[in-house]
Amino acid sequence: MIDRFKILLASSSPRRKEILQMVGFKLRIVPSDAEERIYPTPEETAIKNAELKALSVRDKAEPDEIILAADTIVVLNGEVLGKPSDKKEAVEFLKKLSSNYHTVITGFALLFPNGKLVSGLEKTEVKFKRMSLKEIEWYVDTGEPLDKAGAYGIQGIGAIFIERIDGDYFNVMGLPVGKIYDILTLESNYFI
Amino acid sequence: MIDRFKILLASSSPRRKEILQMVGFKLRIVPSDAEERIYPTPEETAIKNAELKALSVRDKAEPDEIILAADTIVVLNGEVLGKPSDKKEAVEFLKKLSSNYHTVITGFALLFPNGKLVSGLEKTEVKFKRMSLKEIEWYVDTGEPLDKAGAYGIQGIGAIFIERIDGDYFNVMGLPVGKIYDILTLESNYFI
Repeated sequence: MIDRFKILLASSSPRRKEILQMVGFKLRIVPSDAEERIYPTPEETAIKNAELKALSVRDKAEPDEIILAADTIVVLNGEVLGKPSDKKEAVEFLKKLSSNYHTVITGFALLFPNGKLVSGLEKTEVKFKRMSLKEIEWYVDTGEPLDKAGAYGIQGIGAIFIERIDGDYFNVMGLPVGKIYDILTLESNYFI
Repeated sequence: MIDRFKILLASSSPRRKEILQMVGFKLRIVPSDAEERIYPTPEETAIKNAELKALSVRDKAEPDEIILAADTIVVLNGEVLGKPSDKKEAVEFLKKLSSNYHTVITGFALLFPNGKLVSGLEKTEVKFKRMSLKEIEWYVDTGEPLDKAGAYGIQGIGAIFIERIDGDYFNVMGLPVGKIYDILTLESNYFI
């Protein structure tokens, strides 16, 4: 049922690939080379960048493939925490996250073979435990925070520092797969 | 840091193994053959069974290993949904879960080399989307629900049917790894 959707994923994120394969989508990957832009709000930024990425691989899609792209942003008190530039910045990010809630926003875009573009976003609240400086420094030294928005990975060592989430877990990993499935099902009218 | 804890996992659950390895624990597995019992409340049932499992492998632990056991229970409106006995029961369970919140309770027990037993539980609220009967039947036919408490797996195809969770995601997978880490850290006084 799910494997009748042929997805062209415009992302090199191993986590997005893993999520889509986990639920059984047919998958081909063509990373986008679209440059990420910054818009007035985190929500716009996430959606517009997802749309840009989806459109950027349009020429590489087979006639029956649905293009999927996403952009995940970590926001704490209105401040966007991107990928840390070095260990020092990763420590700063984690100090800010410690004991607090932050929001993970994933914008996504689906570009259908008929040219229809459907985009949207999903927000999840994530609460970090209080981390000691020793824990933060140890965690940064593992290397895991360095290539991740917000300087942590929920699907990894970071799991031990997260107290709770409110919302979609897979959204925090980088792709709100339940919402993607709903849209695909709606657009194709398969289930009633 | 984490790999200084040597865990003896008294469970054959591949998901618990995966979670512990993901965060970096040293791990050895000796499945328990303790028989699960039913106590007056789901909370007691989860904790007591975890304790029974931990104690049952006591003789097989090395002197420096900490035994860890867990028991995960799915509760909907006070009713415990165990592993479905067949496809028909799996369909019934999923019909009940559809559109509703349920609670996942994992009881856990840690048995330290000095004989100290620390046990506790974690609860997570999980909200299912509305599932059509076609979707339920299709999902049951994938086989995924048949060996799982509550007839679904959140780390699998089941992901597409879950609207949101409130609490610890890993608890729904079968092990509240953040809480386990906290107790180990507290008991060993490693971080301040």
